[in-house]
Amino acid sequence: MDTKEALLSQISEPAHGSSNKVTVVGVGQVGMAAAFSILSQGVSSDVVLVDVVADKLKGEMMDLQHGALFLKNARITADTDYAVTAGSKLCVITAGVRQKEGESRLDLVQRNTDVLKHIVPKLVQYSPDTILLVVSNPVDILTYVAWKLSGLPKNRVIGSGTNLDTSRFRFLISQKLGVAPSSVHGWIIGEHGDSSVAIWSGVNVAGVRLRELNPAVGTENDPENWKDIHKQVVNSAYDVIKLKGYTSWAIGLSVASLASSILRNSNNVHAVSTYVKGLHGLEHDVFLSVPAVLGAGGISHAVSQPLSDDERENLHKAATLMAEVQKGLKF
Amino acid sequence: MDTKEALLSQISEPAHGSSNKVTVVGVGQVGMAAAFSILSQGVSSDVVLVDVVADKLKGEMMDLQHGALFLKNARITADTDYAVTAGSKLCVITAGVRQKEGESRLDLVQRNTDVLKHIVPKLVQYSPDTILLVVSNPVDILTYVAWKLSGLPKNRVIGSGTNLDTSRFRFLISQKLGVAPSSVHGWIIGEHGDSSVAIWSGVNVAGVRLRELNPAVGTENDPENWKDIHKQVVNSAYDVIKLKGYTSWAIGLSVASLASSILRNSNNVHAVSTYVKGLHGLEHDVFLSVPAVLGAGGISHAVSQPLSDDERENLHKAATLMAEVQKGLKF
Amino acid sequence: MDTKEALLSQISEPAHGSSNKVTVVGVGQVGMAAAFSILSQGVSSDVVLVDVVADKLKGEMMDLQHGALFLKNARITADTDYAVTAGSKLCVITAGVRQKEGESRLDLVQRNTDVLKHIVPKLVQYSPDTILLVVSNPVDILTYVAWKLSGLPKNRVIGSGTNLDTSRFRFLISQKLGVAPSSVHGWIIGEHGDSSVAIWSGVNVAGVRLRELNPAVGTENDPENWKDIHKQVVNSAYDVIKLKGYTSWAIGLSVASLASSILRNSNNVHAVSTYVKGLHGLEHDVFLSVPAVLGAGGISHAVSQPLSDDERENLHKAATLMAEVQKGLKF
Amino acid sequence: MDTKEALLSQISEPAHGSSNKVTVVGVGQVGMAAAFSILSQGVSSDVVLVDVVADKLKGEMMDLQHGALFLKNARITADTDYAVTAGSKLCVITAGVRQKEGESRLDLVQRNTDVLKHIVPKLVQYSPDTILLVVSNPVDILTYVAWKLSGLPKNRVIGSGTNLDTSRFRFLISQKLGVAPSSVHGWIIGEHGDSSVAIWSGVNVAGVRLRELNPAVGTENDPENWKDIHKQVVNSAYDVIKLKGYTSWAIGLSVASLASSILRNSNNVHAVSTYVKGLHGLEHDVFLSVPAVLGAGGISHAVSQPLSDDERENLHKAATLMAEVQKGLKF
Repeated sequence: MDTKEALLSQISEPAHGSSNKVTVVGVGQVGMAAAFSILSQGVSSDVVLVDVVADKLKGEMMDLQHGALFLKNARITADTDYAVTAGSKLCVITAGVRQKEGESRLDLVQRNTDVLKHIVPKLVQYSPDTILLVVSNPVDILTYVAWKLSGLPKNRVIGSGTNLDTSRFRFLISQKLGVAPSSVHGWIIGEHGDSSVAIWSGVNVAGVRLRELNPAVGTENDPENWKDIHKQVVNSAYDVIKLKGYTSWAIGLSVASLASSILRNSNNVHAVSTYVKGLHGLEHDVFLSVPAVLGAGGISHAVSQPLSDDERENLHKAATLMAEVQKGLKF
Repeated sequence: MDTKEALLSQISEPAHGSSNKVTVVGVGQVGMAAAFSILSQGVSSDVVLVDVVADKLKGEMMDLQHGALFLKNARITADTDYAVTAGSKLCVITAGVRQKEGESRLDLVQRNTDVLKHIVPKLVQYSPDTILLVVSNPVDILTYVAWKLSGLPKNRVIGSGTNLDTSRFRFLISQKLGVAPSSVHGWIIGEHGDSSVAIWSGVNVAGVRLRELNPAVGTENDPENWKDIHKQVVNSAYDVIKLKGYTSWAIGLSVASLASSILRNSNNVHAVSTYVKGLHGLEHDVFLSVPAVLGAGGISHAVSQPLSDDERENLHKAATLMAEVQKGLKF
Repeated sequence: MDTKEALLSQISEPAHGSSNKVTVVGVGQVGMAAAFSILSQGVSSDVVLVDVVADKLKGEMMDLQHGALFLKNARITADTDYAVTAGSKLCVITAGVRQKEGESRLDLVQRNTDVLKHIVPKLVQYSPDTILLVVSNPVDILTYVAWKLSGLPKNRVIGSGTNLDTSRFRFLISQKLGVAPSSVHGWIIGEHGDSSVAIWSGVNVAGVRLRELNPAVGTENDPENWKDIHKQVVNSAYDVIKLKGYTSWAIGLSVASLASSILRNSNNVHAVSTYVKGLHGLEHDVFLSVPAVLGAGGISHAVSQPLSDDERENLHKAATLMAEVQKGLKF
Repeated sequence: MDTKEALLSQISEPAHGSSNKVTVVGVGQVGMAAAFSILSQGVSSDVVLVDVVADKLKGEMMDLQHGALFLKNARITADTDYAVTAGSKLCVITAGVRQKEGESRLDLVQRNTDVLKHIVPKLVQYSPDTILLVVSNPVDILTYVAWKLSGLPKNRVIGSGTNLDTSRFRFLISQKLGVAPSSVHGWIIGEHGDSSVAIWSGVNVAGVRLRELNPAVGTENDPENWKDIHKQVVNSAYDVIKLKGYTSWAIGLSVASLASSILRNSNNVHAVSTYVKGLHGLEHDVFLSVPAVLGAGGISHAVSQPLSDDERENLHKAATLMAEVQKGLKF
């Protein structure tokens, strides 16, 4: 009898599955920040990492495991073989070539489509009931690509979209007002990135719209120049990449917030990329961010925001652009 | 089109199930402290209350729901009909007549057996894969009763047992040493209550056993009178009931800690009541607390603690007593 | 050398103070739900209980201490002597005669004023830099009373006010819409209780006001009868008291949310009772709830909500009523 | 009147200080993992970053700020000027040249001493009551250096030491046993790194020492080869660095656990580097890790573990080595 047998009398086979398993594909800065946020905030107790670079993958797994004592004993596993992902409730896809300084999100698209062809079918094979959360950029097009590759219903393929742009927006307004970000409300929708749309009409604190107090908020004619905050949001990724080389923490936390709403079936509203044909008069087969209700089944509802002509036009422009790029994609 | 339809475009049916559903049967002080601990510590996002007293039940449900905003939007439901419990991962049974001042736990047994006959079969009917966690007193016998009534394998019927006695023990030692309870290690096993057994030989801080420093710790001959701490543990329930009328917070938190280990499949070791025939030479069909490994399948292993002759004898006495009481029970 | 000395070599005197000490005065259902919420959500690691009923007080303290292992080793103390409260960052006052079934909040006022005379000066004596959070009912008048008795600046005397009414409002709307309470925004201001004011004009999801979609929301002429939700809010306390005898969980969690904003200096906006003379044209020396920014210094700002004539009138009526009652108070 | 003034009526000056301010010096992988762990686990709501590389520093600050919405509105600031650190309760020093693949920790020492000369006096100048937590390697010698440079009492200068080695040890044993790391107890003391000492005699689950079951555990003559686990611990940093280039997550979480014990004044026992002259017969002016009680005043007690001759000898060897290196240091 060895030490373990002398110590522990088996009463039943230990359970293997878990009910909140999350797979993160891609162990670059974004994937690891997402995995770490999910673990350190207790969103899941069972995180699986997958990547093609076996060494890096093993190193990241070991580094997380060495901290399991401080993560409420979460289970952390990793493999280059997707069999390890079986039974995931949520699969977060962060793999892909990273946006370089100065590179537009759209330039990345075909390269990352090819990457997804290797990933998505395997995820769905091992976890047919999973929800896919695409984080790789350009996120809106890649969410469309993942949807096409997966064969899943549209509610179960989600792009992280402008959830992050929205948190940046709320932080920057919070700084200007001296109020906590979670008490400042405002939404960025549309394309994640350069052509995102700030819905200034809805920006409010305690239900009081800034435009009720200053109708120029968010317009070109505003002496207080609130519009500049949206410019800062658009430039945020570029600025951070310039300064530190990549973005990681905020997108990691943003992903963890989406994962929490899904795993807890909380029906929180987040700005995420979803299939928008039929919303706001959009007629293309594209994914763009709108506020959406997230639960255990993915997206159950999209919120219909009244849009100004400008806002609607910008959304349509983005959709048309997406559709054109998508036309050229080789699956 | 009503306001909801105008606001929300449906994309898919909202998901109804959740993967961490917990039912609490009995909305007395213990049941509510357990439900509230589970919710406020984020252990589950989906808690169901069941009781026969419809008014009280509805009042407790409403009171919790009114705080859902502060509970990460947890779902709280309640009904006198067990259909509401369907699909529970864990069912916590706190129903039963409460221990009165001065009443021994054993006096309560037949009355509470009759209560369990109404509860257990319905829980198992609606959640055939559930784990049962019995909290009602006398907990060890009632766990046996629940096991018999349920037809479930022994790993899936657990009594809250001496998890609470152990936390009291660790707190009281922590006060004497000036060290945090979580850094003071010691175990109370056996019967929850008057005949519980303190395993003084294993009491340690950072792996240093108090008995290495003072061999008399826990014995009658100890000038520092550490043994008194076990007496305080045994008297704790009586003392608290005398002072405030019932016990609630600590048992509620103790239940939440067990629920967390089960729902997170964490394999933590807790002193819980389990089927002990075959352990420590016990030959009766009884449930008593020993340190056990808890995960998603319930109890996977019991820890084999070397016992002194006294400790073993006390365990056997308790087991014999349980078995006798159980013989007289009418199912 | 005793066991402790043999085990632990002293390197420095253990620190006694803490930087997040919270005192809760009154260990009735509300006080204990507040203390327990603060502890179980990790808002403070140092909670002191004070009451005049020594037995009950000791029982509650012991019951919490027995769960300290599950509360990240929080320090829990209690005494009938206010010396134990010294150095509190926040003092929560829940003492007072409880509202009976059918009793109006205003009937309680002189009785509870007399209670505060014994409490407030002692709290301020031992913690001159503290913030006072009054929860006892009728909360708006008693916050005024506490302010008068304390001699503290108005930013440091706060009533829990309609923070709870607001959470009830958001929960009830969330149920009607199928969206998480934290994604449903709306505010109840004014008097906590019968004459509270629902600001229907600001109720929104993702910045979309329900009134943009249905202008009748909250009015008498609304076929969807949203107004009924405010009636349910007003009746909530009565209903819950009728059903379970008292309210506890939601108010406890509401207090913990305020405590968190104060102790973390987060600048979150909450509907709390504050000195409103000068706001909304109010001319009386009264406390009523408005959305306010809460941080380490208490209330730094009140949010100026545009009010409809009705809303303003209701606020003024409540203020006039308060002022009249206050005139008759004997300090 | 601008929009902010129209929205917010000032009632008092917003509070600036906080009671849980933590400074992290050095925004490399270790510093950022520490800062992020502290923020994402809610240990502090007020984190300051300092570094000499202004661009990287600003990028990291912005990236964290963009996630503030998901960090309970924590305040994140950064500057190259130490004035921003004023009033810190805890200062974590991670600056220094990083250990390269194959480089021994001792080789780094003079280079990093020179770095500390620029950091420590400024930290103490702006936060004279702070606790210093040194993480930079070789941590034991650099903790001594920080102590000398700071002029602070020894309880307030702490090295992260073998808190991480201990968590690795517990994780690896947990894997071998199938029990959660937090239910597996064992300690690594002495020098952080190559000459660390595993206290096999105390390794236990539920108070049951593995050596009671298998006296060879941790020795050379053990057919089950438990000793290999300590070798893996010693090699962990080298292995992870080889695989991913650096270590970050586990050391970040380890630091957050120490910060939590200090800020919450919890008196938890951690293996940290402290001034050990007088303990275990050590006669040198050195810092080595032993289990120590951590609270708001830093280290209050060291735990006196009975050591085997081998263990004691290894400790003394490490101390002698440290002392020799220290002799050569230029301050």
